[in-house]
Amino acid sequence: MIVAMRKDTTQGEIDAVVQRAKSMGLDVQLNLGTEKTVVAILGTNTGKLPTDIFAVLPGVESVSRIMKPYKLASREFKAEDSLVSVNGIEIGGKRIVVMAGPCAVEGEEQLMKAATAVKSCGACILRGGAFKPRTSPFSFQGLEQAGLELMGQARQLFNIPVVTEVVDPHDVSQVSRYADILQVGARNMQNYALLTEIGRRKCPVVLKRGLASTIKEWLTAADYILAEGNNRVILCERGIRTFEDSIRFSLDITSIPVVKKFSHLPLIVDPSHAAGHYSFVPAIAKAAVAAGADGLLIEVHPNPKEALVDGLQSLTPSDFAKLMKELRLIAKSVGRYI
Amino acid sequence: MIVAMRKDTTQGEIDAVVQRAKSMGLDVQLNLGTEKTVVAILGTNTGKLPTDIFAVLPGVESVSRIMKPYKLASREFKAEDSLVSVNGIEIGGKRIVVMAGPCAVEGEEQLMKAATAVKSCGACILRGGAFKPRTSPFSFQGLEQAGLELMGQARQLFNIPVVTEVVDPHDVSQVSRYADILQVGARNMQNYALLTEIGRRKCPVVLKRGLASTIKEWLTAADYILAEGNNRVILCERGIRTFEDSIRFSLDITSIPVVKKFSHLPLIVDPSHAAGHYSFVPAIAKAAVAAGADGLLIEVHPNPKEALVDGLQSLTPSDFAKLMKELRLIAKSVGRYI
Amino acid sequence: MIVAMRKDTTQGEIDAVVQRAKSMGLDVQLNLGTEKTVVAILGTNTGKLPTDIFAVLPGVESVSRIMKPYKLASREFKAEDSLVSVNGIEIGGKRIVVMAGPCAVEGEEQLMKAATAVKSCGACILRGGAFKPRTSPFSFQGLEQAGLELMGQARQLFNIPVVTEVVDPHDVSQVSRYADILQVGARNMQNYALLTEIGRRKCPVVLKRGLASTIKEWLTAADYILAEGNNRVILCERGIRTFEDSIRFSLDITSIPVVKKFSHLPLIVDPSHAAGHYSFVPAIAKAAVAAGADGLLIEVHPNPKEALVDGLQSLTPSDFAKLMKELRLIAKSVGRYI
Amino acid sequence: MIVAMRKDTTQGEIDAVVQRAKSMGLDVQLNLGTEKTVVAILGTNTGKLPTDIFAVLPGVESVSRIMKPYKLASREFKAEDSLVSVNGIEIGGKRIVVMAGPCAVEGEEQLMKAATAVKSCGACILRGGAFKPRTSPFSFQGLEQAGLELMGQARQLFNIPVVTEVVDPHDVSQVSRYADILQVGARNMQNYALLTEIGRRKCPVVLKRGLASTIKEWLTAADYILAEGNNRVILCERGIRTFEDSIRFSLDITSIPVVKKFSHLPLIVDPSHAAGHYSFVPAIAKAAVAAGADGLLIEVHPNPKEALVDGLQSLTPSDFAKLMKELRLIAKSVGRYI
Repeated sequence: MIVAMRKDTTQGEIDAVVQRAKSMGLDVQLNLGTEKTVVAILGTNTGKLPTDIFAVLPGVESVSRIMKPYKLASREFKAEDSLVSVNGIEIGGKRIVVMAGPCAVEGEEQLMKAATAVKSCGACILRGGAFKPRTSPFSFQGLEQAGLELMGQARQLFNIPVVTEVVDPHDVSQVSRYADILQVGARNMQNYALLTEIGRRKCPVVLKRGLASTIKEWLTAADYILAEGNNRVILCERGIRTFEDSIRFSLDITSIPVVKKFSHLPLIVDPSHAAGHYSFVPAIAKAAVAAGADGLLIEVHPNPKEALVDGLQSLTPSDFAKLMKELRLIAKSVGRYI
Repeated sequence: MIVAMRKDTTQGEIDAVVQRAKSMGLDVQLNLGTEKTVVAILGTNTGKLPTDIFAVLPGVESVSRIMKPYKLASREFKAEDSLVSVNGIEIGGKRIVVMAGPCAVEGEEQLMKAATAVKSCGACILRGGAFKPRTSPFSFQGLEQAGLELMGQARQLFNIPVVTEVVDPHDVSQVSRYADILQVGARNMQNYALLTEIGRRKCPVVLKRGLASTIKEWLTAADYILAEGNNRVILCERGIRTFEDSIRFSLDITSIPVVKKFSHLPLIVDPSHAAGHYSFVPAIAKAAVAAGADGLLIEVHPNPKEALVDGLQSLTPSDFAKLMKELRLIAKSVGRYI
Repeated sequence: MIVAMRKDTTQGEIDAVVQRAKSMGLDVQLNLGTEKTVVAILGTNTGKLPTDIFAVLPGVESVSRIMKPYKLASREFKAEDSLVSVNGIEIGGKRIVVMAGPCAVEGEEQLMKAATAVKSCGACILRGGAFKPRTSPFSFQGLEQAGLELMGQARQLFNIPVVTEVVDPHDVSQVSRYADILQVGARNMQNYALLTEIGRRKCPVVLKRGLASTIKEWLTAADYILAEGNNRVILCERGIRTFEDSIRFSLDITSIPVVKKFSHLPLIVDPSHAAGHYSFVPAIAKAAVAAGADGLLIEVHPNPKEALVDGLQSLTPSDFAKLMKELRLIAKSVGRYI
Repeated sequence: MIVAMRKDTTQGEIDAVVQRAKSMGLDVQLNLGTEKTVVAILGTNTGKLPTDIFAVLPGVESVSRIMKPYKLASREFKAEDSLVSVNGIEIGGKRIVVMAGPCAVEGEEQLMKAATAVKSCGACILRGGAFKPRTSPFSFQGLEQAGLELMGQARQLFNIPVVTEVVDPHDVSQVSRYADILQVGARNMQNYALLTEIGRRKCPVVLKRGLASTIKEWLTAADYILAEGNNRVILCERGIRTFEDSIRFSLDITSIPVVKKFSHLPLIVDPSHAAGHYSFVPAIAKAAVAAGADGLLIEVHPNPKEALVDGLQSLTPSDFAKLMKELRLIAKSVGRYI
């Protein structure tokens, strides 16, 4: 940590900073600049310390970190790429893993039609929501237990792993009976009780980026799961909130190379929630693969016009089939396959 | 709802929009413009319908709302200001209610010193966190049950109502045994399981604005609590995430007149979390009172330099005393008192 | 335009809205909802009218547009894609046009080395700045006239069109003597005097998106140039300002399909300014081509370590050569070529 | 500057950083941490150096500043508050200076009525725009020279200083014949040619904050004017672009204490452009005075319903009179007057 002292600081104030660092077992080096004194605080665990510890001391102007606030998710902690294996499907390897299906499970016919469509086009994981966090209390909230059971049926019938969202720490056990991968939604990225519980369960988990979370905060949230001994974490970029109003969220395409540089975890992209409109999904999906994403999470509905949730961002089976063909070409052009 | 058709739409597409609206019991009026056809969809409950229902239909260019997505929190639903009464203290009336205390309960001595200080200066509600959602899993997470018990002790000893955060729906019952007001933090503004549970409990609740939530989303979140029959909701503005990096969050001062115009709920302001630094707290607190806030939620710590959490944004007792004097003058200048 | 009246509006207030619309030659249709009255205002030119005209009237709650605020840049105005031709190179066609070169012209040797490198790798337009708008007055501001002359020399020597920025309306004539394409930087996207002057000049122009401009504002800025009769406008996405702090700007990848849907103008992408760091440039460039961009604007410097401006985001000639090979594969996979 | 090396850096890479610093006459101190090496680079002028100079070198992970990028606008450069005097009116002193008038000068009757109204209520400077930068080329662009002449007439007739916007560096001389204070609009905050020209002119200038500019960038823009020897700079906060869509811009109230802490320049607030709606102007204006602003810039129009520009955000004379009474009470409560 770098503690910059104010121009008019006193020797006593500098000493207090040094003393506090030493009392925590940290090393200190003083940089006596011509205009300002800078105290460098050194040690293995400074990334875990809040900057406030020094910023509150008199005479301190600013404190900046050298070590990142996350540790277990960092490439410095683990240099080689992590692979998450789900029923023999590896996420983070050469294969681009496409997870597809409806936003919400609405009924047996809808789910089975969707599963048929996505599996026949080459998606290797089925998505579908049973618990739906909705902005308004008057909207459809998901089929809950009945939805989970339908996901379980589809899993068996189509011999395909399934991913579904869990929103309450007390539901983790129940949901993981039906799902191969748990999903933590953007609104729950910092629901630490949920992260900790999933960490203990040690099942694969898709951790979506919060819609106003920095990449640093996202990787620090991953540390909550990793710290419990669950290293089967798959990150998912799904767009951030910005001032642009022609789409629902702005997909942060640069998060792909940034995450790949600073973290060893696999990263997939959800183009559907970012776009908010089916017509923008293909371009984002193709961009994600070209930029280095390890997979995609795409909403497909057998009849979007009748969808109870997010119909506007769902692809029809035929649009999805067309997109998969295009994605295969892009994947090949970057040395991967679907 | 206003459905604008594409320039090249067909009569069949327009008919399909009309048909869907009628099938839902809604009224329809057609506006045949020179360039575009616009379908106005009318009815009492259109605010509750997702716009996607029409946006997915062929030939539709855009759908915009006339009715707001929230209902129970709106001034159209209830014209006069709501008052929330807590042990005889009214929030939303002429008195500006100051809630103050430490960010986290750290121990008996710290809490009792803080309570002494804030009560003697005129704060009428004591704040203090027992469950602390923290960005990093390696940070102090709060004293939990022991923290609640200390808050309960302070409540009795100082005869002062207390407010504390609850982060898990399953803790609502436990926390409300010790607290007079529950607090929903910014990261949980859209934790619908939590909102619903608090709605059922019918206890006073401070609902903080999500750090990337629009005012519309915030009021719609309030609807989750109100819809369960709990109308003791106090809104709390605490800053939003923007590109500005000299402070932690940008306090959205304009949310005060906007909320007052569109909602009947009382509104308080948390200057401490927005500022992130004690030196900016007084200016924001004074601005909030001048702009019409009904109260403040301020962090005060007997010794910020030793605080385990957020010491940098905490006022010392003497700084708090000074601020309270200044706030009394401002309150008076806008026809209120503290 | 859709004018929603307040719930408690009077007949007189509704009449005033109708009267104002009719006085401007507009058609009006009334929608008498069960809760609210909505006045639809119809006419060819309502997109050009400010919404304030109606929003200021008593009893009006909100005014929303059906027509877009831009006209000449819209696909409704011109359905087929526009091509901008520069010395026989077509921008907006099947070929992905790569413009590359140094951020700033620093001297003859640097520019000629850069030109050699980018031309040999297949870039078909040379970029280089002579006027550099810099955040700090103490930074290098560009070689100005001498820089223009060097760009002119490179143009002749390498038989390659050149693009360079112009920052002052009074320099347009001078700069266009040396440049084949003028560039309007992000900070000048709403410098209307500059846009108007370039509109009159009728030369090809790259219009960068303002760092806090919506797509609507960007296309409306293009209307300033188009309205003067210059239809050789090339849009350039270069990242927008968001809260994310690991990169300089967040490239808005979704702007590509959005612009393609709503406008006929060609669109290129500048990955260098968005990334701010050379290591992120290739991923963004590849994503842009996959998402449908018509070209790229990439910074290449013969020796980034010695660059006077933005060295950190510049590719070396060998990194650029490698990227061009990768881009060719992606271009082919989306049915285009470089 | 603090240069953090990568974990796996070599001695040669560290030496290269040290060498480059020394070649620029800077001092260097090495901090050999247990995990990372940090090079502290010291010297009076490091604030003026771009961080890229070191960030491009091999083995460097990140570079952060200790010195701020602005110098002349900083409190470290000048500790005491600056006062800007305009015809005997001091901006930055105990008096809160209210500048008011129409957004755009529309004609003699409109301007004189507005001037009468604002002067009689205690505004001491008249505002009015002759050059209006507008989003759309089809909107009213201002009366230009005729507008300036009307401002000149009002100045004489009412014996009141006037402030008006200048948008082109070549107009500075012309505009300053009619205006006592020049205004640089938000869209031109980084129009460096304009800033430099105003710097040379040495007349008072209101520098509005760019709608997506950080406070650091704003103060660095002020340095452009100060560096030319013109120290009569008045900063003006007018709201920033965020995701919130119920208002036009989010007024950054915290910028007031932040600017007051880090800069010696006077600071006024424009509540009208931030609000976008007259009903929100009073709350913001009162908040600004309570938070420590030195003045206000408020739009007043004799008949907002007929305004050609921004009528929705203009106060009527009677609303302005009411607001001025309220502001006097707030000013008094913070030890100032109007």
